[in-house]
Amino acid sequence: MAQKPSIPKGTRDFGAVEMARRNYIFDTIRQVYSLYGFRQIETPAMENLSTLMGKYGEEGDKLLFKILNSGDFNREVSAAEYTEKNAAQLAARFCEKGLRYDLTVPFARYVVQHREELQMPFKRYQIQPVWRADRPQKGRYREFYQCDADVVGSDSLLNEVELMQIVDEVFTRFGIRVCIKINNRKILTGIAEMIGEADKIVDITVAIDKLDKIGLEKVNEELRAVGLSDEAVQKLQPIIALSGSNSEKLETMRQALADSPTGLKGVDEVAFVLQTLQHSNLHNEVELDLTLARGLNYYTGCIFEVKALDVQIGSITGGGRYDNLTGIFGMPGLSGVGISFGADRIYDVLNQLNLYPAATESGVQLLFINFGGAEAAHCLQLAATARQAGIATEVYPDAVKMKKQMAYANAHHVPYVALVGESEMAEGRVALKDMNSGEQCSLTIDEVIARLAAR
Amino acid sequence: MAQKPSIPKGTRDFGAVEMARRNYIFDTIRQVYSLYGFRQIETPAMENLSTLMGKYGEEGDKLLFKILNSGDFNREVSAAEYTEKNAAQLAARFCEKGLRYDLTVPFARYVVQHREELQMPFKRYQIQPVWRADRPQKGRYREFYQCDADVVGSDSLLNEVELMQIVDEVFTRFGIRVCIKINNRKILTGIAEMIGEADKIVDITVAIDKLDKIGLEKVNEELRAVGLSDEAVQKLQPIIALSGSNSEKLETMRQALADSPTGLKGVDEVAFVLQTLQHSNLHNEVELDLTLARGLNYYTGCIFEVKALDVQIGSITGGGRYDNLTGIFGMPGLSGVGISFGADRIYDVLNQLNLYPAATESGVQLLFINFGGAEAAHCLQLAATARQAGIATEVYPDAVKMKKQMAYANAHHVPYVALVGESEMAEGRVALKDMNSGEQCSLTIDEVIARLAAR
Repeated sequence: MAQKPSIPKGTRDFGAVEMARRNYIFDTIRQVYSLYGFRQIETPAMENLSTLMGKYGEEGDKLLFKILNSGDFNREVSAAEYTEKNAAQLAARFCEKGLRYDLTVPFARYVVQHREELQMPFKRYQIQPVWRADRPQKGRYREFYQCDADVVGSDSLLNEVELMQIVDEVFTRFGIRVCIKINNRKILTGIAEMIGEADKIVDITVAIDKLDKIGLEKVNEELRAVGLSDEAVQKLQPIIALSGSNSEKLETMRQALADSPTGLKGVDEVAFVLQTLQHSNLHNEVELDLTLARGLNYYTGCIFEVKALDVQIGSITGGGRYDNLTGIFGMPGLSGVGISFGADRIYDVLNQLNLYPAATESGVQLLFINFGGAEAAHCLQLAATARQAGIATEVYPDAVKMKKQMAYANAHHVPYVALVGESEMAEGRVALKDMNSGEQCSLTIDEVIARLAAR
Repeated sequence: MAQKPSIPKGTRDFGAVEMARRNYIFDTIRQVYSLYGFRQIETPAMENLSTLMGKYGEEGDKLLFKILNSGDFNREVSAAEYTEKNAAQLAARFCEKGLRYDLTVPFARYVVQHREELQMPFKRYQIQPVWRADRPQKGRYREFYQCDADVVGSDSLLNEVELMQIVDEVFTRFGIRVCIKINNRKILTGIAEMIGEADKIVDITVAIDKLDKIGLEKVNEELRAVGLSDEAVQKLQPIIALSGSNSEKLETMRQALADSPTGLKGVDEVAFVLQTLQHSNLHNEVELDLTLARGLNYYTGCIFEVKALDVQIGSITGGGRYDNLTGIFGMPGLSGVGISFGADRIYDVLNQLNLYPAATESGVQLLFINFGGAEAAHCLQLAATARQAGIATEVYPDAVKMKKQMAYANAHHVPYVALVGESEMAEGRVALKDMNSGEQCSLTIDEVIARLAAR
């Protein structure tokens, strides 16, 4: 016997229950995106490597799955060249295409390629898998879905406001309590300017983030350890100790950044978004968090991140504004802002909190037991009638032992089983068994349909 | 300026309108599959090459997209070996994974890998893209979706009957008139046995298929040209001239194949399926067609194919029974039967016949014009109210010229535009413009919602 087949490490099969749950997640996000006027697009799994390479840093290039050219891929690479070159150089000769690494770069490529057809501002959403040759580990996969929404071609902060509303609406629908954290790249730039250490901003935010855990003294030690002068550390004190309401924090920052026009602009942007959101009756709290510093090289304005309150897990959604996404493809000056829901982590949170609606996994509602011959043919017709009424129905295909057929119904949590033997067939009735209560009663097919439709 | 980016040949981007249409197709198929108790699964885009290689013939192996191993993929291949080996052999050393080529082999792999968890009969459906390094041409892509449903673990011909019902239901929902063709591999085997030319069955069906076009004389000439004896050609005459109703054809075949137990079994199988279907009130005709010979090496029982009646295009759906799909993975004796809808061709047919329901592309229903400042903030709240009522709503993000905002509404076919200036805001009203009639009226937001919900 052959070895049991398997799938590549870091990839997953999804069975019926997992699919039902995943579809619930994707459908919820899709519905909210649509409600806000975002339009769905899809791009190919394979992009030209010229589109992907150099967009995710050196480490990212290594994590791209590259696709071997078809046919004589080796034709133009001599043995001498093969010996001389390293793996990355050879890969570039053997491969022209790669699997997409995220949805953002393909989106930028899409906008530039289709710019003549697109009406700005362009609001798109995209729910597709991406692939990364990361070392697989718990909760990190080599194939996973991203659920992105972006607006390009509009500088308005109302876009930021709407994306926050979307985040709030999606998690409210899921029943997941979250904290939405907001920051602004310009505030971080202002801080760096203020202390004259622009290149240390990541180290600084990492250190400040530890305040709760290690206390002010240790934070200051760490800041000195990464090379900040005593004067710089001194200037950072009001920022490290930042607390209070969002308005109080903003006021403190406004004073601390009084000399940085960029920093003040960042404060104004966050203030506008928070103020506008005050009238939106959000279900979740939005909190200014200066330690939020995701994707610094990439974002230029507001930055968001969402944390679940009731489960210990990393960020489950994130996003922000970028001012030059399409510049890499020769179309400068197009501002955009976007968010990305982390479907796999949301899946884990919904599982842990057991938040799936009961209807999520309801599959087949009615199974006809197969007694063979004329009875089975008759049941096919009854099943067709039930399906016309929208009731998901099966006829067990084989006339095997009743026990086996009932085991099938149980395994699939089918709530009702129909038994139509010779006598029921003659009388034009169905013996309907409620699999939860065990009760059985004799009904016409129309009565069966009425009962199931009422559920 | 950089060169305009592009996508790999044979791949496609899908914009908002195409996505709406494609989702309509996939959702329709999904709904019908679910109604019949099929359960959705998904498998990874990447499979181990050991799973894929050798399953699609020599030509198929060449059409697999192979994924270069990560890191030092070339480490174990010396320059000498590099020179000695051909492209296929080198590919096998450089690559362990490939993109799935269809949904059938991954499904077989899934069944074998998860057999302990699966309840037989196992009815699954799967709607995912597949990739083939085919030469791209009109209507043939390197990435395309397949929409498969299969039942494994049941020999019952009721499965064939249900799949025909599904085909009929799906195309009825689409409004596409079709002819469902049915044949049986065992009938073809019987014919080959009868004339003692088992290896020529494909040539024979190809020749017979030309009867309408070239006439009986030329068909017989062609049969002799592929090497059939005069006696064999003579024996084939009743089969070539086969006509009349399905029952008449079956009767003729029963006589012609009287000496072939296998052939007669095939006739019985088709007769059972057709007879059982007679009580199903199908909307489309099912026709026995002996020239139907798709995937001969693969199918072992009934074979189906669907042709659109009102558009000249190849088969838009196909399928059949196979008796040993999982045997290739060491799990013999599991019979299965399946169908596959050709989404891309169905898309073309729906386009040509203009059969998309009007609602398919309805996106945003209401756009608030942005007059800036306090008015815009007020509109955000009104928009939130409309969205709570399930109305897809946008607020134009920038306070630009009215003309530009109206152009945006027109480009996206938004049916209603809301204008809320200073006076409307003061009065608590909305000036609602019907973009089709051009009429404008003053309403409260609740009246706006009532009007749009009634649409």
